[in-house]
Amino acid sequence: MGIRVSPQSRLQCFAAHITDQIRLGEQKPFKEVIDVSSGDFHRAGMKPISFVRQVLAVCLYPELLKDKHVAEDVRRRAQTLLGVCAGDSVGSYSASAGIPHVRQSIAEFIARRDAGVPSYVKDVFISSGSQSALKVIFHLMADVEGKTQRGVLTPMPCPHTLPPLLDMSGLTLVPYQLKEDRGWAVDLDELHRALNSARGRCEPMAIYISNPGNPTGHVQDRKSIEEVIEFAAAERLVLLVDEVYQDSVYGGDREFISYKKVLFEMDKSFSETVELVSFHSISSPCMGECGLRAGYMELINMDPEVMHFIDILLDTYISTPVTGQLALDIMVNPPKPGDASYDTYTQEVLLTRATLSHNARRVQEFLNDLPGMSCQPAMGGIYLYPHVHLPTEITEQAEMLQMEADVLYCQMLLEEEGVFVGAGCEHGETTGQHRLRLCILVPPNTLDGVLTRLGSFHLRLLDKPLLHRKNHT
Amino acid sequence: MGIRVSPQSRLQCFAAHITDQIRLGEQKPFKEVIDVSSGDFHRAGMKPISFVRQVLAVCLYPELLKDKHVAEDVRRRAQTLLGVCAGDSVGSYSASAGIPHVRQSIAEFIARRDAGVPSYVKDVFISSGSQSALKVIFHLMADVEGKTQRGVLTPMPCPHTLPPLLDMSGLTLVPYQLKEDRGWAVDLDELHRALNSARGRCEPMAIYISNPGNPTGHVQDRKSIEEVIEFAAAERLVLLVDEVYQDSVYGGDREFISYKKVLFEMDKSFSETVELVSFHSISSPCMGECGLRAGYMELINMDPEVMHFIDILLDTYISTPVTGQLALDIMVNPPKPGDASYDTYTQEVLLTRATLSHNARRVQEFLNDLPGMSCQPAMGGIYLYPHVHLPTEITEQAEMLQMEADVLYCQMLLEEEGVFVGAGCEHGETTGQHRLRLCILVPPNTLDGVLTRLGSFHLRLLDKPLLHRKNHT
Repeated sequence: MGIRVSPQSRLQCFAAHITDQIRLGEQKPFKEVIDVSSGDFHRAGMKPISFVRQVLAVCLYPELLKDKHVAEDVRRRAQTLLGVCAGDSVGSYSASAGIPHVRQSIAEFIARRDAGVPSYVKDVFISSGSQSALKVIFHLMADVEGKTQRGVLTPMPCPHTLPPLLDMSGLTLVPYQLKEDRGWAVDLDELHRALNSARGRCEPMAIYISNPGNPTGHVQDRKSIEEVIEFAAAERLVLLVDEVYQDSVYGGDREFISYKKVLFEMDKSFSETVELVSFHSISSPCMGECGLRAGYMELINMDPEVMHFIDILLDTYISTPVTGQLALDIMVNPPKPGDASYDTYTQEVLLTRATLSHNARRVQEFLNDLPGMSCQPAMGGIYLYPHVHLPTEITEQAEMLQMEADVLYCQMLLEEEGVFVGAGCEHGETTGQHRLRLCILVPPNTLDGVLTRLGSFHLRLLDKPLLHRKNHT
Repeated sequence: MGIRVSPQSRLQCFAAHITDQIRLGEQKPFKEVIDVSSGDFHRAGMKPISFVRQVLAVCLYPELLKDKHVAEDVRRRAQTLLGVCAGDSVGSYSASAGIPHVRQSIAEFIARRDAGVPSYVKDVFISSGSQSALKVIFHLMADVEGKTQRGVLTPMPCPHTLPPLLDMSGLTLVPYQLKEDRGWAVDLDELHRALNSARGRCEPMAIYISNPGNPTGHVQDRKSIEEVIEFAAAERLVLLVDEVYQDSVYGGDREFISYKKVLFEMDKSFSETVELVSFHSISSPCMGECGLRAGYMELINMDPEVMHFIDILLDTYISTPVTGQLALDIMVNPPKPGDASYDTYTQEVLLTRATLSHNARRVQEFLNDLPGMSCQPAMGGIYLYPHVHLPTEITEQAEMLQMEADVLYCQMLLEEEGVFVGAGCEHGETTGQHRLRLCILVPPNTLDGVLTRLGSFHLRLLDKPLLHRKNHT
């Protein structure tokens, strides 16, 4: 049926299997599996934002409104949020595009973030995460009576969730290569090459951008964003921009600039025509509420008919969980100076950013010190994406096992050291090279363990690749 | 693009518009719109189950574990549930098929419910509601390389969410008529007729059943279930059974019997071969947690390859909100006798059932007393589905406006009395007849208002249909 198991799922099963073995008392050289393969911050030991959890607890059990131990601004916010739920209950369905009050909060957040570029509630759609929103857009793009296959220009490497989503939507993945030697920057010539190579094969409809980059950690500067916008305009492509990591840029001179802000500071021939969809979510690094499931997309310059169809399509997806929507409201409208919870909230967010920044530098230096490993510095986001040069013995063995060599590397690392990192091949084309994905939003002491075990495994492997062989045939 | 606005969405927009007008100070003959069009219990003023909300509040804000005012069994349950979340946080992703502990609780619940018929964790899949689960099944059914159009036997009337979902999945709706004069029972001859009429047009893959019936309120007896199972077996159809209202059967001599229980008490030639999918959800009447988004399906006798694909497909749907999954755990594993929260929990559930039973009888009698209105008694579920005989003036006017006459009726009722009921045409074929859908899970005083306004409108309409005409042309 055209569906295949992803290497990530395969490795996940393997990690679960090892965890079961440990539970059943089997002796391993490690006490537990550490998972740094994906962006699941709380699982890795990061703490949630207290204000979010306090407000949600009160919303779920409004008796707590009477509890004077609960901070005044927590009760006030909970009261407001309950007031925007039908029947004052998080148990009611919400409108399919989201609770109007939350959409309003999002529009105000976007306008503040973009220094006054206006944002309108009608352009903001809430969904149960950026993936769900993207699925709606892909559904619309692919939904044609005709026979033309449609395509989406997709960065290589791209978020590992993207290829299966394109596949399921019946869209063709048109790869464009990011430039590793320039810190994984977007390259204009490469965009043109990719587009030309696609023509004939499919009708390219959109270009997907991840900024700050997943999994590259690259953050685009204004010039690069302008180039992409001009390219999209000239080629009449919809711009799909994953900006989920916008709250975590830490790389020296870079700051996050939204595609929308850049677009609206360009000439009217762009700002009034280029179709742009921007995605954000409460699974962002500073919120980390992946389990609550909520995100939004803002659509700019979109055909009114398309907007209308999105509304209808969202209807069949029913509503985003209300608890997630309320968390989204808090993300875009956090405590203000003077509020009882302001100091704690600010400290918690700053701690997350400091952890990211510190870990990013530390991991990059560590990996670059290992033989056969090289890693670009990250400017933002939650991943590092090192290149790993594998001994011929390993690539040959992988070929024999009919699996990607980086997946084999990850599997061996899991088995021998209980460290779970992502395999590069999941991010699209590998062009014969091998890479790993490491999530760096983990407590520093967890990171200690990861680096020690990874380093030790890697050096053993380079030293005596054949020693490891017996376990995997 | 083959997408159309449903009458329900159209009426919803109209209801929202009227609400806005009232907010802006416009004078209306009513103070607010009462929505009894859909099963959104908390919106209508029903109260959530306290135990569910207390446990979730503690899970969201675990500091509450230290609060001695919180009942002991609430804290104990919250502690257990936090322990099954990765990193002890509801903010972590869960496995795509659901948290294993919750799947285990569900399997145990099913086995208890079905008097010992075994249920296995591997067969239980959690999703963000029964719609999402159904979408996965439909996706698999339609996912063929070949040219054959596939179909699903669908009851008329059916849940109003079903036709758009079939449409979006690329499946053909094959209608079979329920028998109104037998309280909306399933009729075997009609199933054969429907199936034969479909052959040639499409390849029927499955039969969809809603029991207790949405929107009919019919509850099947054992004999009727056996007949459907034998039919599905003979025709090699997958049985898709919506059993979301299983917790609310109140009609005299009927009780809820699951399809699975009946199947497993039949001959092995059935119990070991008939493919069955049963759906349930926390949006069930006694829980009413629609906004938290979670449900499950259990798959019986399914091809292992299909099970494998479901796992993979669910992966692209990412995980169900964790708060919803925890609510699901509580639904299937409520407080036990002796627990501090047992009495309150039991009273709350009994109150819901009593409200349903009382309202069902009351509404049915009221409607049958109105001229031109007739209504079958409901045995379970949350809707009544009366037949309404409309004056010729109204049907002609509807034709002129190119809309269904029952939608026009609903629109006029909304405008003149601020009462929002669902239009029958949304439930599939109308065969020229007109019907309404009324949710009866509302507080009795709300119901007072609904009946008074509906009765008054209906009598005015029958008396002088043309009087209403000016507002709608």
